[in-house]
Amino acid sequence: MSKSVYKIIEMVGSSPDSWEDATQNAVKSAGLSLRDLRIAEVVTLDMKIGEDGIGTIFRARVKLSFKLLSD
Amino acid sequence: MSKSVYKIIEMVGSSPDSWEDATQNAVKSAGLSLRDLRIAEVVTLDMKIGEDGIGTIFRARVKLSFKLLSD
Amino acid sequence: MSKSVYKIIEMVGSSPDSWEDATQNAVKSAGLSLRDLRIAEVVTLDMKIGEDGIGTIFRARVKLSFKLLSD
Amino acid sequence: MSKSVYKIIEMVGSSPDSWEDATQNAVKSAGLSLRDLRIAEVVTLDMKIGEDGIGTIFRARVKLSFKLLSD
Amino acid sequence: MSKSVYKIIEMVGSSPDSWEDATQNAVKSAGLSLRDLRIAEVVTLDMKIGEDGIGTIFRARVKLSFKLLSD
Amino acid sequence: MSKSVYKIIEMVGSSPDSWEDATQNAVKSAGLSLRDLRIAEVVTLDMKIGEDGIGTIFRARVKLSFKLLSD
Amino acid sequence: MSKSVYKIIEMVGSSPDSWEDATQNAVKSAGLSLRDLRIAEVVTLDMKIGEDGIGTIFRARVKLSFKLLSD
Amino acid sequence: MSKSVYKIIEMVGSSPDSWEDATQNAVKSAGLSLRDLRIAEVVTLDMKIGEDGIGTIFRARVKLSFKLLSD
Amino acid sequence: MSKSVYKIIEMVGSSPDSWEDATQNAVKSAGLSLRDLRIAEVVTLDMKIGEDGIGTIFRARVKLSFKLLSD
Amino acid sequence: MSKSVYKIIEMVGSSPDSWEDATQNAVKSAGLSLRDLRIAEVVTLDMKIGEDGIGTIFRARVKLSFKLLSD
Amino acid sequence: MSKSVYKIIEMVGSSPDSWEDATQNAVKSAGLSLRDLRIAEVVTLDMKIGEDGIGTIFRARVKLSFKLLSD
Amino acid sequence: MSKSVYKIIEMVGSSPDSWEDATQNAVKSAGLSLRDLRIAEVVTLDMKIGEDGIGTIFRARVKLSFKLLSD
Repeated sequence: MSKSVYKIIEMVGSSPDSWEDATQNAVKSAGLSLRDLRIAEVVTLDMKIGEDGIGTIFRARVKLSFKLLSD
Repeated sequence: MSKSVYKIIEMVGSSPDSWEDATQNAVKSAGLSLRDLRIAEVVTLDMKIGEDGIGTIFRARVKLSFKLLSD
Repeated sequence: MSKSVYKIIEMVGSSPDSWEDATQNAVKSAGLSLRDLRIAEVVTLDMKIGEDGIGTIFRARVKLSFKLLSD
Repeated sequence: MSKSVYKIIEMVGSSPDSWEDATQNAVKSAGLSLRDLRIAEVVTLDMKIGEDGIGTIFRARVKLSFKLLSD
Repeated sequence: MSKSVYKIIEMVGSSPDSWEDATQNAVKSAGLSLRDLRIAEVVTLDMKIGEDGIGTIFRARVKLSFKLLSD
Repeated sequence: MSKSVYKIIEMVGSSPDSWEDATQNAVKSAGLSLRDLRIAEVVTLDMKIGEDGIGTIFRARVKLSFKLLSD
Repeated sequence: MSKSVYKIIEMVGSSPDSWEDATQNAVKSAGLSLRDLRIAEVVTLDMKIGEDGIGTIFRARVKLSFKLLSD
Repeated sequence: MSKSVYKIIEMVGSSPDSWEDATQNAVKSAGLSLRDLRIAEVVTLDMKIGEDGIGTIFRARVKLSFKLLSD
Repeated sequence: MSKSVYKIIEMVGSSPDSWEDATQNAVKSAGLSLRDLRIAEVVTLDMKIGEDGIGTIFRARVKLSFKLLSD
Repeated sequence: MSKSVYKIIEMVGSSPDSWEDATQNAVKSAGLSLRDLRIAEVVTLDMKIGEDGIGTIFRARVKLSFKLLSD
Repeated sequence: MSKSVYKIIEMVGSSPDSWEDATQNAVKSAGLSLRDLRIAEVVTLDMKIGEDGIGTIFRARVKLSFKLLSD
Repeated sequence: MSKSVYKIIEMVGSSPDSWEDATQNAVKSAGLSLRDLRIAEVVTLDMKIGEDGIGTIFRARVKLSFKLLSD
């Protein structure tokens, strides 16, 4: 592990159900191999209300870290 | 959209079930038309334990933004 | 307690004597029933010096939370 | 000045021209007497790009403080 | 209540299901009487992805406050 | 909107005229379709003074969010 | 002093009189030898209003550092 | 007022009695004309315990702003 | 460049026109050779409203870094 | 890993040589099995100058996380 | 320099020796021309302890800025 | 110690070798008697890469506190 290097990217995922689901949607859409992903840290959470006052969407802004280089 | 103005208020909602539910309870109690509400941003989350050690309540402190003026 | 909702407002109180007194002046001037107020959290403290260099005023910027809805 | 009390509210103003203009639009829409307003502190600034990629709007989220009580 | 003293400790709980569950697991493992615990404040939330890209764990870093001394 | 995903990148733009202009220069240089860009949030602002004490450049560090996936 | 090690714990003290007094109550209740304590840093201050709107309590959340190991 | 310029310096004052007193000691020791001083903003507060566990000193770290140039 | 040392000072500049202008006014009033100044980082921005509700002043609190020692 | 729980404690280590060494001294003095320790996160770094102006000590304030419960 | 644009990416580098070395490893692994890189700002530092309690790795999370566009 | 007053100044030191060395260079260049200096707190750390991609410089932005007044 002594020389491993990680890159961190920031994304926003959303879900009509929960912030956990929103986080998983962000991870799935990152276009990265899941083998290399390690952690999704929550930066901010919010809830968006539909234009017509109907329906709410939970959104999670997260930082994803994934391995660039193994030891 | 070029001159729209929003006001932001801060509230704490609670729920025995989840922080998503606590956020929705804060929005419902804000006494505002849902048509004008746009976003509930999470400021802090906590969990309160009942006086007798029984029961937990999830609380979300949120900032609600709603439209004062449309373009 | 499971569905109680709180609103939070931000105020600045002042006093020639102390920050404790400044906080209490902010609470008294909030125009809310004291029965509904719960906590005044300090956001920032400062001390203002009179225009002529005479007299100091202690000021406390606080967030007051009060109950909108009981369970 | 020794017992003056201020209230602080949070708003978002917008303008197609500048963040200075966005701040002034927030102040004008606050529905308060300008005599009582004192300071608009910038919390965050952003720029929104139109749905069709045409047109940009500058937005300023500000905290407005105004006098509730004079000495 | 006028002389009550609280101690605050920091813990990380985890759960395969939700951040609410992760918070409750941290509380249960704190080895404290639930009668004395009052609040678990969320410090950070993250989601860990399994070594082999399979399975996600939700983690909550929380500060627990519990009563040392009653009035 | 319920499953839209955004990516966020961080850039620094500059302009001899204003921070608004610096922000727009960052957006234009991002190499992204303007149709997909939504918001440029200001992270920090500064002003750089030329090596020879002549000329000032306004710089804006911004976070740009753009849509990866529509609902 | 070159190898001294300190531990830091977080506590909340309270007092009907002042935040200075609340800080001293937290220190006295920490159950540590005063010889080893060095500094109580204020994390947050608040004022709690009694359930019946009568009586206020000043509370100080502090970090106490005390020596584990001398040089 | 339209072109006034202020300088801000950071100091730590101390007092055996209170943080208000510590702040005033910092101001008095700043070696500036009181006519030009305007505001002392609190950055951090702490309490130091004497080497022998006897005696406590309240310390306030403050930012002092004073006028360099009037309009 | 390997041993250059910078000092950083904090100032507030103001202007009836813009925050860019306020920043430049702070730099000009710092009483330093422009050759040695390098960067003015924005700490906070606000807008002050005249005592009589007439006229607004834009203020920028900035940190100025200037070279003490060249390599 | 799905139910592991960690506790986090805060310590200050010191060393005449480096902040890396100060961090390792904090870890060694924590009185915990190294098998259970996982991460020492840096909170703040400083350098203390000896009373007589001779000798400098590097200090690291760190948060140590260690496992309370394995899955 | 008046229109230069920078991009900022976030990485984590590691080293068995020091945080300086960890930062250089992150820079080398970024896959960018060193001619275009300018600054690596430290976001957080930590030290990871080996699974078996043997060996420590210093890690630096850094933001790298590199030039996209020259004037 | 009960009335000692400290002033705090902010500086940036640099070194080709380490952040510890950069901090010591800032202290040495402050032009203050070492007898009066007490602590250099790290505000930020970064690493600058030479114009031609050759050579790196470690920089430490620090706050130095030194005694203005003894008890």
